[in-house]
Amino acid sequence: MRIAGKNYKTIWFNEKNNLVQIIDQTKLPHSFEIITLSNIDDAVKAIKDMKVRGAPLIGGAAAYGIYLAMKENPSDEYLKISSDKLIDSRPTAVNLKSAIDIMNRELQNINIKDRHEVSLKLAQKFCAEDEAYCKNIGTFGKDIIERILVEKNLDTINILTHCNAGWLATIDWGTATSPIYHAIKEGIKIHVWVDETRPRNQGASLTSYELSNEGVPNTIISDNTGGYLMQRGQVDLCITGADRVLNNGDVINKIGTYLKALAARDNDIPFYVAIPGTTIDQDNNKITNTMIEHRSSSELTHMKGLDDKGQIQKIRIYPEECKTLNPAFDMTPGEYVTGLITECGIFESSEIGLREYYSAAEANR
Amino acid sequence: MRIAGKNYKTIWFNEKNNLVQIIDQTKLPHSFEIITLSNIDDAVKAIKDMKVRGAPLIGGAAAYGIYLAMKENPSDEYLKISSDKLIDSRPTAVNLKSAIDIMNRELQNINIKDRHEVSLKLAQKFCAEDEAYCKNIGTFGKDIIERILVEKNLDTINILTHCNAGWLATIDWGTATSPIYHAIKEGIKIHVWVDETRPRNQGASLTSYELSNEGVPNTIISDNTGGYLMQRGQVDLCITGADRVLNNGDVINKIGTYLKALAARDNDIPFYVAIPGTTIDQDNNKITNTMIEHRSSSELTHMKGLDDKGQIQKIRIYPEECKTLNPAFDMTPGEYVTGLITECGIFESSEIGLREYYSAAEANR
Repeated sequence: MRIAGKNYKTIWFNEKNNLVQIIDQTKLPHSFEIITLSNIDDAVKAIKDMKVRGAPLIGGAAAYGIYLAMKENPSDEYLKISSDKLIDSRPTAVNLKSAIDIMNRELQNINIKDRHEVSLKLAQKFCAEDEAYCKNIGTFGKDIIERILVEKNLDTINILTHCNAGWLATIDWGTATSPIYHAIKEGIKIHVWVDETRPRNQGASLTSYELSNEGVPNTIISDNTGGYLMQRGQVDLCITGADRVLNNGDVINKIGTYLKALAARDNDIPFYVAIPGTTIDQDNNKITNTMIEHRSSSELTHMKGLDDKGQIQKIRIYPEECKTLNPAFDMTPGEYVTGLITECGIFESSEIGLREYYSAAEANR
Repeated sequence: MRIAGKNYKTIWFNEKNNLVQIIDQTKLPHSFEIITLSNIDDAVKAIKDMKVRGAPLIGGAAAYGIYLAMKENPSDEYLKISSDKLIDSRPTAVNLKSAIDIMNRELQNINIKDRHEVSLKLAQKFCAEDEAYCKNIGTFGKDIIERILVEKNLDTINILTHCNAGWLATIDWGTATSPIYHAIKEGIKIHVWVDETRPRNQGASLTSYELSNEGVPNTIISDNTGGYLMQRGQVDLCITGADRVLNNGDVINKIGTYLKALAARDNDIPFYVAIPGTTIDQDNNKITNTMIEHRSSSELTHMKGLDDKGQIQKIRIYPEECKTLNPAFDMTPGEYVTGLITECGIFESSEIGLREYYSAAEANR
């Protein structure tokens, strides 16, 4: 997608210098910086520090991380060490684990001397697949937007989203935003309510930034505001992404998603979750403590922005002695989700719905 | 209540210089500053700029505002002009209107030459009454805390609150916090989850500050976090204040209150609203647009805090060109409220409940 009119993806292989490059998302929206990942530790750090974030992109970065490791040392031992390091970098995104599993499964049958080359192809394939998934999500999701527009006889449809499940969270297109981008291409008028998404403000800093760069009208609201807008009929549809969908349909996503799902339910507003199949956790139907990452207190107590000279400053907004708790995700029961928008179509967010998804995905293969 | 071990109220008459003084709440928690209101315009500005905030305290400040006006010019005309200015300063808090109405009703029968002196007595009486209301709210609310503690056999009770309905929002004691302070006095162990309360962060800046100064253990959480904690059984009780309770029991309070009420309902957690009777809007049973104040975009896009030299800095956190919407209040349907904790006891938040409140208030007179 575009930034200042120029096309980018969130991660790519730079053929010239054989290195992996990413957009440093911690610098957005104040500054657009491209950084280079030269080795496995760079990849781990980029994930841990959220220079790349969003479940699908974390998966892509992990796949490229394995490539960088294999470039350095293609031994079985180093593959194991590097995989473990990546797995430990962020606990919630199931895509991270899927990416590592796929890379390991494929590489273990490959001669050590070929692993460097093959791992690059695998990482590129992994990312291309994610891109294709997101594109399909957009096509299916666009139909939902169109249907509501017609049913409610709207001139402009108001969509609320939480956090960033945009193209910046994937390789391209995004999950929650892909239906929006696809609908806009067909001339449908959309306005997006963007939840600020405390404490890291990914909605205000990333979603609003990427929507504006694509020319999609959007308004930043505090996380407290969505319910009020829904009560007043100012939201026609909610779409979020997910970090992990359990195999009973429960959705683990950015903290606060659950509150918006409750408000949507209370006001009869459709609440969809857009995910590629890689986000489904086939092994678990119960949330566990390890799935919910608790992040640093400083994400709440400090804020970054521009001072009056236009320089990036970090300030402390609450007293040093205050205590905070900062869980990054919550769980929305599947029954509160109108449907999952996947690369294979729309499915109920339930055990039955996911079984149907698996059949469809199998048939598509 | 105490700040750094010393007793304060939020507004008081300084006998020495015949002036009204307040704590400048826009400076908290970084700096504790007392400022002087010398005339009606100072009072209007203090309310408008939220140097004083919270429905009951706004009422108190308005009463003192009328005193300052009468000191300057006790004419009928100036009383009218000053009353209008005050009414226009903040639209949502019904206490503002109540205070002005009371002051006007009493003063119109008073000789112009006596108005200066009488208006001071009236303002002092208005504030003393609010203090007494808050004290009573504490006594009734403490019983709720005690009951839940016993019923659930808890060592420590976890209470969630939104925004600041603490003593800083009233003259003393607070509304939502008064039950907490009263329970703590009896040795009940309490931990408070403090919603940050974007975009002005009154929870993190004021509630946490006042609780800590009273020695009450508390943890600041993002507004997105309450639902997650409720799902995990980490919240035993919610108490908020209100800016206006309609006469059908619907509660207008700080934006985001509705979302917490929904989550409490979804998890069978009692959700109480603590108010003095002055917060009840006897004239309206329907929310109107004018009741919901829309505040400046800069509350969302800018943030104040301490830089690394300990100086207060204001930074811009989102791009200049971004669009925001900043409604300050939302409406929680009365049926989602477990009860109203008032100075006369606990009542259902409904037309019937409010009728019972009126009878009790009448009997108490």
